[in-house]
Amino acid sequence: MNYSLIFQILGWVIELEGCFMLLPFVTGLIYREPKDALIYLMIGITSFFLGRLLRKKKTKTSTFYAREGFVAVALSWLVISLIGSLPFIITGDIPSFADALFEIISGFTTTGSSILKDVEALSHANLIWRSFSHWIGGMGVLVFILAILPMTGGSTMNLMKAESPGPSVGKLVPKMQQTAFLLYAIYFAMTVIELVLLLFGGMNFFEALCHTFGTAGTGGFGVRGDSIAGYSVYLQNVITIFMILFGINFTFYYYLLFRKFKDAVCMEEVRCYLLILLGATLLITASLVHAGGEFLPSLQTVAFQVASAMTSTGYATADFNLWPQFARTLMVCLMFIGACAGSTGGGLKVSRIMIYFRQVKKELIQQVHPKRVHVIKLDGKALPHTVVHSCNTLLMAYLLIYSVSLLLISLDGFDFTTNFTAIVATLNNIGPGLGMVGPTGNFAGFSVLSKFVLMFDMLAGRLELIPMLIIFHPGTWRK
Amino acid sequence: MNYSLIFQILGWVIELEGCFMLLPFVTGLIYREPKDALIYLMIGITSFFLGRLLRKKKTKTSTFYAREGFVAVALSWLVISLIGSLPFIITGDIPSFADALFEIISGFTTTGSSILKDVEALSHANLIWRSFSHWIGGMGVLVFILAILPMTGGSTMNLMKAESPGPSVGKLVPKMQQTAFLLYAIYFAMTVIELVLLLFGGMNFFEALCHTFGTAGTGGFGVRGDSIAGYSVYLQNVITIFMILFGINFTFYYYLLFRKFKDAVCMEEVRCYLLILLGATLLITASLVHAGGEFLPSLQTVAFQVASAMTSTGYATADFNLWPQFARTLMVCLMFIGACAGSTGGGLKVSRIMIYFRQVKKELIQQVHPKRVHVIKLDGKALPHTVVHSCNTLLMAYLLIYSVSLLLISLDGFDFTTNFTAIVATLNNIGPGLGMVGPTGNFAGFSVLSKFVLMFDMLAGRLELIPMLIIFHPGTWRK
Repeated sequence: MNYSLIFQILGWVIELEGCFMLLPFVTGLIYREPKDALIYLMIGITSFFLGRLLRKKKTKTSTFYAREGFVAVALSWLVISLIGSLPFIITGDIPSFADALFEIISGFTTTGSSILKDVEALSHANLIWRSFSHWIGGMGVLVFILAILPMTGGSTMNLMKAESPGPSVGKLVPKMQQTAFLLYAIYFAMTVIELVLLLFGGMNFFEALCHTFGTAGTGGFGVRGDSIAGYSVYLQNVITIFMILFGINFTFYYYLLFRKFKDAVCMEEVRCYLLILLGATLLITASLVHAGGEFLPSLQTVAFQVASAMTSTGYATADFNLWPQFARTLMVCLMFIGACAGSTGGGLKVSRIMIYFRQVKKELIQQVHPKRVHVIKLDGKALPHTVVHSCNTLLMAYLLIYSVSLLLISLDGFDFTTNFTAIVATLNNIGPGLGMVGPTGNFAGFSVLSKFVLMFDMLAGRLELIPMLIIFHPGTWRK
Repeated sequence: MNYSLIFQILGWVIELEGCFMLLPFVTGLIYREPKDALIYLMIGITSFFLGRLLRKKKTKTSTFYAREGFVAVALSWLVISLIGSLPFIITGDIPSFADALFEIISGFTTTGSSILKDVEALSHANLIWRSFSHWIGGMGVLVFILAILPMTGGSTMNLMKAESPGPSVGKLVPKMQQTAFLLYAIYFAMTVIELVLLLFGGMNFFEALCHTFGTAGTGGFGVRGDSIAGYSVYLQNVITIFMILFGINFTFYYYLLFRKFKDAVCMEEVRCYLLILLGATLLITASLVHAGGEFLPSLQTVAFQVASAMTSTGYATADFNLWPQFARTLMVCLMFIGACAGSTGGGLKVSRIMIYFRQVKKELIQQVHPKRVHVIKLDGKALPHTVVHSCNTLLMAYLLIYSVSLLLISLDGFDFTTNFTAIVATLNNIGPGLGMVGPTGNFAGFSVLSKFVLMFDMLAGRLELIPMLIIFHPGTWRK
């Protein structure tokens, strides 16, 4: 294991986090919260210099294998979460360590599950930090570092691979650094467009910024107790559209940008994602209309909720906990499916579901025609065996983590629906579930053990399991 | 498709079912239920001659591919269920067609889920037929035919493969017919031993026979409203032990029988199965003792319930619906795991879970040491790639069927726990779930659509998905 290189990466991450804290610092100044501003400034400066110190030690070799990539990513995420939780504790807004850590992990992993009973009691500095963490975590902090720094030598692909969601990393351009830069450029541009559209609809700058961060990272932290329900239909619709857009594979935007329209249209995953969104919206709307709802208002609300669940954002304009059972069950299914690979969304990802589905189809065909050769394709290209295999093991690891987590949190004695959907909501980085953790509820009631289990699930979900499992695998640390 | 051969197999199955109806006929005579006895006699005779007629047509060729195997098995199970449901309807004990079909499919697939509100209202003839269906379905009706008939030519392996549970068919001896015969011999012998032990404990012959059938097939139909709760501790313990024994891979008994003790002890699946049983029993007992229960009575009850859930039998001596949430959740997990491959039990099977687990471990090792070659082994032998792949696609097909079924039955509007565990209980051939379908509940409240969905799940679960999916795959019926 190349420890010095890992330390250097951690140094970069910590230094960067120090810089990120400027935003809550400035927010605190503007909103006359001197104590909070000072706290963010102090932690920011400390973090900045601590990071510098850590990366002082020069590395002997820049050899960087997959193992180092996974370990570096997992440790980076743990470290930014630990440091990121400090302001909540020190400002006193979230005094408990477990709660503060839960909240910031939920932020960085773009989950949006909260332990807060009253979000409106938080200071502006803490609110913006909470939402900003979604934006940072959405595209990935190491991808950000790759984008702005000329990482010296080594296979930076391994870092990118470990942090980016999806069965395979879409290299947009041959060079990794350029790919990372392009991704962040697209991300940044879309963020600005949403911000402008929200401001245009009359949202104040602070709230517009928070909600844009929450949408862009498909996170879901808001600033009001009723999430997005209190805003105008225009604002809700803008957020609906941007949730859907941020759930699309960013390669799609790259194709659009470089006028490769044919390639964009041919992306099977994007088409399938949009079809599922449309189908689910219509089915749930029908279910609500059947239960006595009016068509157009139902359609508008359902489109928001479906986009929120499938892209793993977790914003709410309605308490879907009160919807008919069919609609609630379909919402849970959407949470499992998730958004596209290479987006900021969570879940198993549409392309993986497609790969699973095609494997079942292939098995049936092979049983019927044993001699016919059938290849699993995506976007017209045959998928390498290793990609298919990784998808399969991810599903198994996913179910394994799911079962163990479910057992552990069931010790708290809450009902099955609450427990089952609490894991759905955290492992898929959604936010709210059903029952006690529904859109109007929160995660405060769980024991400290359960909170740590759910924190692990959020990190495992965001990093797609392997990095989090690898740091607990003894073989990783052996020579 | 070799239709004439499939017709011949269906003929054998129907003819055999006619013979099986002799048992309820005789039971009806003994218990002075002349009407019921006559009905069984009439249906039995009709079925016998109908079968003969069907298999009159000689086959031109005995070529028999995997496709024919799957189709023959799926159709056989549909046909025995359809004919098997007739006595319930005609005797008037279960007048609704959907309910009668549900009950007998639950019987043949060894599920044990019931739509009956009052099982004690059934005639003795119907009760024994219901339980006997467990015994027939447990080892498989086509395996029975293979055991007693010299099937002319063709690859009978394909029939056996399609009906026997587990990732691969354990050929005990080179010849398929001898393997089938040996399996039934072991099955029959164990059945007789349990019957004798139950009689020894004071159970009357009729009830002992019903419960032996229910245990041997890991089915779960009883004759009393409170299942096994009303019997003595001795009788409960005998049933506990035999549930566990019937959940063991029958290859284990073959090894014991032929004094290959070393091979028997080396069976990893059996060791893992027993370890899980032991671990789960201790954990749940601890959970009950923690909640105020006494140690020894709790241990006895928990051992029964754990064995019942894991082997997919579904008998009950306690309402685990009232247990602490942890215990209930662990029970649901056991239901997913299931018994050993090559036993009469259902679920995903211990060996598959082991294969999934080992693939995750392999993936981790390969990420850490990309150049190291790591092979997935079971019982010390490397598993062929095709077996691993089939296990994986089975998991995907399983989750797919699970999700679609869950969505469809959620239309009825029952709570999430009921719906979720109703599918667990039927797709894994367990019997009871939690909530409305808990040990003291039943499946009567579901709509006809949901009942048909659950029937499909029971058949798909018993035949391990592929046969049931293949008959709905258009490619199967094309030339």
